Amino acid sequence: MMLPELRETVSRLHAELVRYNLVAWTAGNVSGRDPGGELFVIKPSGVSYDELTPESMVVCDLDGNLVEGDYAPSSDTAAHAYTYRNMPEVNGVVHTHSTYASAWAARGEPIPCVLTAMADEFGGEIPVGPFALIGNDDIGKGIVATLGGHRSPAVLMQNHGVFTIGDSPKAAVKAAVMCEDVARTVHVSRQLGDPLPIPQADIDRLYDRYQNVYGQRSTL
Amino acid sequence: MMLPELRETVSRLHAELVRYNLVAWTAGNVSGRDPGGELFVIKPSGVSYDELTPESMVVCDLDGNLVEGDYAPSSDTAAHAYTYRNMPEVNGVVHTHSTYASAWAARGEPIPCVLTAMADEFGGEIPVGPFALIGNDDIGKGIVATLGGHRSPAVLMQNHGVFTIGDSPKAAVKAAVMCEDVARTVHVSRQLGDPLPIPQADIDRLYDRYQNVYGQRSTL
Amino acid sequence: MMLPELRETVSRLHAELVRYNLVAWTAGNVSGRDPGGELFVIKPSGVSYDELTPESMVVCDLDGNLVEGDYAPSSDTAAHAYTYRNMPEVNGVVHTHSTYASAWAARGEPIPCVLTAMADEFGGEIPVGPFALIGNDDIGKGIVATLGGHRSPAVLMQNHGVFTIGDSPKAAVKAAVMCEDVARTVHVSRQLGDPLPIPQADIDRLYDRYQNVYGQRSTL
Amino acid sequence: MMLPELRETVSRLHAELVRYNLVAWTAGNVSGRDPGGELFVIKPSGVSYDELTPESMVVCDLDGNLVEGDYAPSSDTAAHAYTYRNMPEVNGVVHTHSTYASAWAARGEPIPCVLTAMADEFGGEIPVGPFALIGNDDIGKGIVATLGGHRSPAVLMQNHGVFTIGDSPKAAVKAAVMCEDVARTVHVSRQLGDPLPIPQADIDRLYDRYQNVYGQRSTL
Repeated sequence: MMLPELRETVSRLHAELVRYNLVAWTAGNVSGRDPGGELFVIKPSGVSYDELTPESMVVCDLDGNLVEGDYAPSSDTAAHAYTYRNMPEVNGVVHTHSTYASAWAARGEPIPCVLTAMADEFGGEIPVGPFALIGNDDIGKGIVATLGGHRSPAVLMQNHGVFTIGDSPKAAVKAAVMCEDVARTVHVSRQLGDPLPIPQADIDRLYDRYQNVYGQRSTL
Repeated sequence: MMLPELRETVSRLHAELVRYNLVAWTAGNVSGRDPGGELFVIKPSGVSYDELTPESMVVCDLDGNLVEGDYAPSSDTAAHAYTYRNMPEVNGVVHTHSTYASAWAARGEPIPCVLTAMADEFGGEIPVGPFALIGNDDIGKGIVATLGGHRSPAVLMQNHGVFTIGDSPKAAVKAAVMCEDVARTVHVSRQLGDPLPIPQADIDRLYDRYQNVYGQRSTL
Repeated sequence: MMLPELRETVSRLHAELVRYNLVAWTAGNVSGRDPGGELFVIKPSGVSYDELTPESMVVCDLDGNLVEGDYAPSSDTAAHAYTYRNMPEVNGVVHTHSTYASAWAARGEPIPCVLTAMADEFGGEIPVGPFALIGNDDIGKGIVATLGGHRSPAVLMQNHGVFTIGDSPKAAVKAAVMCEDVARTVHVSRQLGDPLPIPQADIDRLYDRYQNVYGQRSTL
Repeated sequence: MMLPELRETVSRLHAELVRYNLVAWTAGNVSGRDPGGELFVIKPSGVSYDELTPESMVVCDLDGNLVEGDYAPSSDTAAHAYTYRNMPEVNGVVHTHSTYASAWAARGEPIPCVLTAMADEFGGEIPVGPFALIGNDDIGKGIVATLGGHRSPAVLMQNHGVFTIGDSPKAAVKAAVMCEDVARTVHVSRQLGDPLPIPQADIDRLYDRYQNVYGQRSTL
């Protein structure tokens, strides 16, 4: 079986989507690219999170074609594949319909950067990508075009949900978790008034520090 | 004991109502019809979800009469029975008072289709059925009359809660889970402004694709 | 040890407060009266829910004096005791600061009866009791004076939280669970408009039916 | 290994942050000071809550320098250290970005004392501290300057999150749990109108009683 470690990692990371309540039924998926390679591992379509195993994961090439697996790949595979083809530094992609992030996406409204944790992780607002239908490369193009112009590893696809990227599947899952967390906090804050802005220079300082200093060097 | 597999399926599916926080105490129920048959299995009345077993499930005929079981059937049995009698393609019915869906129901307001996931599963708005009292066929008539005119497998019964249907008990449970999920997301989105509409032609394309392409053919 | 079965019941029912997220830290308690007797069992003060056992429960008389137990009784014991002294049909009392019910209580606003489930369980609105300080019988008097004039087994004590009563500890816990459930649903409904009223005659019909017909006769 | 009991306590208390949904990913930390001593134990930076053990905890001196440990200390260590240096009665500090408290913090708005549970634990409103960047003593100074003038063991740091203090790590964790609980309840109450104020004299009575009477003397 190809890519056994990556299958194990991607399978296991789906449990984080469940733990943080980012997904209902089977509506969310994680993929991971073999670093430097031409293949990625992704969730099979329509399979429940309880039933995921390393063996049930699916291997695809960068055009989204099935290379190895007993199941059909996620219906979002084309968007993952397009992202990997066009963003060589990306080795992990996550898609969810998490509640608060999708609520901003349904209004087509970016999440303003009014929390230091948001400056740390996203370096500014979380942007909105275009409305796009599933079935071709339109979603992938929207992801890449939007994230290309932002520090944010998360994009809110209009009327749809969230895609996040990272240099590993774990980093993309972290971005998905933090995206919903800040989407919720900023939403709640806005319900009773206007959150105070953070000056751009301070956002820049926070982002720079977090990307370069935070955490154990060996574990990120 | 009659219908042992269906008893097992219906008993087990109640755990999904608990997992997705769709029910409090004993206020929600799943039933499943023997495909092509004249019997259905339903939750016993007033029994907690922890105590449900295949053996404690109740078998009723399509008039809602008890056929086999040690307990009285759910107090919502008449509504399930009426639905099966009048919708021969339906083999699963679920009823909940899930929070966000019931909140729309209390205002008598349909949930607008502003999410692609909603277009996929519901094919448009989730409609509202009439206010109806328990105790005769009024609730069942409201369900059938409302769902007869919509693609949606879910109906918000005014001031009451949700009924969902499916060609299997699992499909009806999925509809109940997704109904609450989109009810919550659209609610949250509307709290801070107006969600952007999705053009009807795009809703139609999404619905058609999802109903015909998504998932593993063998597992749905 | 006195009242071993009641100790077991009351200890175990605290887990329902935790399961339904009605309590934070140690802020909530259940008591049960020995039917026809002069004693009740209540949570010890300041002990975490994880550590509760039948043995750690405390037995008090109807004046709230400690009769048996290694711990001090709950700081809310006087309110429980006053309720038992003045409502002989009550054999269970529950107190929580559950979020949505306490939010209505902080505004001093009763929860209007706009859900059939609320008509079933509460027979109308959930009323507000007076602001009262802990330390004497003022809270107990507020509970008894308010519930004496209502069908509702739950009262929202102004700026404080919820007290519920029942003919058993389990019934009082059920009322606390359902109170928070309807407090949340009606809150959410009101956030986006006005819920539709239910005519009083229909509330009466629902309440009468639920109190007399619902559930397994042997299990309530 | 130094301070084995304190390592065990601090490690274990992080599970309460997870249980009460106060933290996402690794964004929250607990520390505890050796009473009367010059050392404190704190969470390692960027390590997930699942992986915390007494052995992975880090020991620092009151200037925030690493004294013992295999990992780098939390990136918030300077704020903890400053608090211990300047508040000798404090032996526990907790930091979270819990949703509702951080939402008030993002607006720079203190939480008004409109719940008796809030009068008990916080003795009045929960105050707001200044906006401050990480990287020097600014956050610590803001914590100490704000809490020095209040009864509250919790401070909302503007656009950031919550810091709480206590005479033990457990007391600081309790304050963090209660802070989010009241932040949520007051937020929800305010969504539909104005909560009723509690007279200052009653707040004083409640606070005095709770600090001096509540709980088992031996377990707090």
